[in-house]
Amino acid sequence: MVNVAILGFGTVGSGVAEVLTKNGGLIDQRVDDLVRLKYILDVREFPGSPFKDCFVKDFSIIENDPEVDIVVETIGGATIALDFTTRALKAGKSVVTSNKELVATHGYDLLQLARENKVSYLFEASVGGGIPILRPLTSCLAANELTQITGILNGTTNYILTRMIKAGLTFDQALKEAQDNGYAEKDPTAGVDGHDACRKICILAALAFGQHVYPQQVPTEGIRNVTLEDVAYADSKGYKLKLLGRCMREPEGKICAFVAPHLVSDHNPLAGVEDVFNAIAVTGNAIGDVMFYGRGAGKLPTASAVVADVIDIAKDRKKDRHNAWGPGAPDLVVSPDILSSRWYVRASATVDQARLACGEILPLARAGAPADETAFLTDLMTQPQIRDCLKGMAVSSLFRVLD
Amino acid sequence: MVNVAILGFGTVGSGVAEVLTKNGGLIDQRVDDLVRLKYILDVREFPGSPFKDCFVKDFSIIENDPEVDIVVETIGGATIALDFTTRALKAGKSVVTSNKELVATHGYDLLQLARENKVSYLFEASVGGGIPILRPLTSCLAANELTQITGILNGTTNYILTRMIKAGLTFDQALKEAQDNGYAEKDPTAGVDGHDACRKICILAALAFGQHVYPQQVPTEGIRNVTLEDVAYADSKGYKLKLLGRCMREPEGKICAFVAPHLVSDHNPLAGVEDVFNAIAVTGNAIGDVMFYGRGAGKLPTASAVVADVIDIAKDRKKDRHNAWGPGAPDLVVSPDILSSRWYVRASATVDQARLACGEILPLARAGAPADETAFLTDLMTQPQIRDCLKGMAVSSLFRVLD
Repeated sequence: MVNVAILGFGTVGSGVAEVLTKNGGLIDQRVDDLVRLKYILDVREFPGSPFKDCFVKDFSIIENDPEVDIVVETIGGATIALDFTTRALKAGKSVVTSNKELVATHGYDLLQLARENKVSYLFEASVGGGIPILRPLTSCLAANELTQITGILNGTTNYILTRMIKAGLTFDQALKEAQDNGYAEKDPTAGVDGHDACRKICILAALAFGQHVYPQQVPTEGIRNVTLEDVAYADSKGYKLKLLGRCMREPEGKICAFVAPHLVSDHNPLAGVEDVFNAIAVTGNAIGDVMFYGRGAGKLPTASAVVADVIDIAKDRKKDRHNAWGPGAPDLVVSPDILSSRWYVRASATVDQARLACGEILPLARAGAPADETAFLTDLMTQPQIRDCLKGMAVSSLFRVLD
Repeated sequence: MVNVAILGFGTVGSGVAEVLTKNGGLIDQRVDDLVRLKYILDVREFPGSPFKDCFVKDFSIIENDPEVDIVVETIGGATIALDFTTRALKAGKSVVTSNKELVATHGYDLLQLARENKVSYLFEASVGGGIPILRPLTSCLAANELTQITGILNGTTNYILTRMIKAGLTFDQALKEAQDNGYAEKDPTAGVDGHDACRKICILAALAFGQHVYPQQVPTEGIRNVTLEDVAYADSKGYKLKLLGRCMREPEGKICAFVAPHLVSDHNPLAGVEDVFNAIAVTGNAIGDVMFYGRGAGKLPTASAVVADVIDIAKDRKKDRHNAWGPGAPDLVVSPDILSSRWYVRASATVDQARLACGEILPLARAGAPADETAFLTDLMTQPQIRDCLKGMAVSSLFRVLD
């Protein structure tokens, strides 16, 4: 018998309870043991719930019950969740979570704590929702030196950008539609300002390159400044506007990581990733490029990933999962300034002025553009170089291009 | 120390030797032991090879060396490879392979034999080349009842179809180009007639649904009959011609599996998979749809998957991997006749005759079509129903549609 406790009965937590119940037969078969949901911790009352006998309000009941093997933390945030996760690991219980904020900010410490207590801390659901990505990264791609990861990591922003591209909605209209459809939180900051994608690229970078990358080390730009004008210019040459989280291995053990809107070429499979879908492209020195695609959020997809971690632990509770990375360092993460890209520029200027400033350019067109507006793609250059070229020009938009 | 022997120094075998050497440092680190290439079995001479001290010509040297822990079989086919795999497993050595033919035809027996001898038989590289798919299917998606798998499983045919679609080459021209570029074998039968995709969908079906599916149970149609006319008609409504391997869970424990060209809607991410790339879409009852995308063949990508299996075994040689499925049965696999689809039809008929025969249809157009040719998409119907509708009509092409 393997006993599970769920902390927090929100969207993901209730999805975990549902999957554990609905697919209970096949889960028991795969684990070769009985996996039982023993507790659900939540401050609220759920009188009509089919799980009503499981509810408790006091974490110490779970903490002190030696029968509990696995704690599923779906509270979110990095305060109470940190306290409960720490206590669960110290009590010798493995912890599974979908909490990207906690993993991105305290992952190194919690993985160390798990190791000291000979238990596991797994978080497949923290990146890409249900998409299998973290386990493939560390097992299926283990023969590779990984060199870079590029991902559409947030479903809300991808939905907003897709609706701007396909339906011509403004950012505000598309955000409202996303909120009405339940795709975006009432406070959409974490999504649209890129913080959610930032946490996820931190976790991917840490697993791929072996050292903790903290969110505050990762320059992060969201999509609030993306306009319909930019969408139209991009479209004229077969580019789609996407919010990308990127990380890459740099010389001398450094890591470059950042989050920013990009113009993605239609030749790149990431350009075709629409609506709330996520996709993560990984490059390794043997495999070349692979991409993982699916629903990056949602109750049951996320629960699918959480329960996969539960099954993994339940199958072998003593296994040392080596799912750890080294500590971070203030000088570990280098600025994306060093990275050469082509750039998309929209500015108040003539094409001749743009050419004079930036050299070889590809001018873009859109219907109804005012006479004093020019948009263009540049050749490869770094951020300081393009900033230098554009000095004195009234620039409305400046985004990197991913071909 | 973990000792590895490679059987067959062809494309994949030499790639495995290269990855084991090039990434040796990080592999040893991930395994937490030294992984050493001890033998390479090949009948040929490789006098200038950096691995020249490893070559042997007699399998019994490997079979009888108690130091050999893992045998990598990259011979291909189901004769010598079967003999050597059987003997290696009986000698207590784990076997890793990229040999889809052997797994699809003898997987059940070899997995049983591996279990009896307390060793592993792993074959991640047999499907999708380097794309992580088999391990994600059995671990990351373990919380799901899987319901169907749809894949572009053969790079050669996808390259040929892409060149027909994008460059207007005929099948024969595109095949020759694929051969000239080294993407297609001199004898391209296994690819273009669908046998390669058939073996792969057998392996996927067996892992997803838990019983051995034999290639001869799977109706298989290749791409020799796909014409430029079909490509043009499909394109007119946003469809791409793709060779798909499909399998789905049916009631009463049955499995439906088949390989056939399909018209795939541009709204489906499989439509955007071009050139030699492969992609595999998996549907589960919690996760919904996920897709895995990457290079389905090639020396280093395939070697990446083989070496990932080697690392998995080397990390824990005693682990029971449960990577098994049940035996097949003559009545396990049901005919795709039962599956309703929309259909693409190209025939010598008028639109009125087509409508009379098939009811509600969507006529398609192409430049330069002869007056007596009509192509159209039907509503949902089964194969016997569409065959019945088309009785007496001179049908040139009949393909399923995947929206």
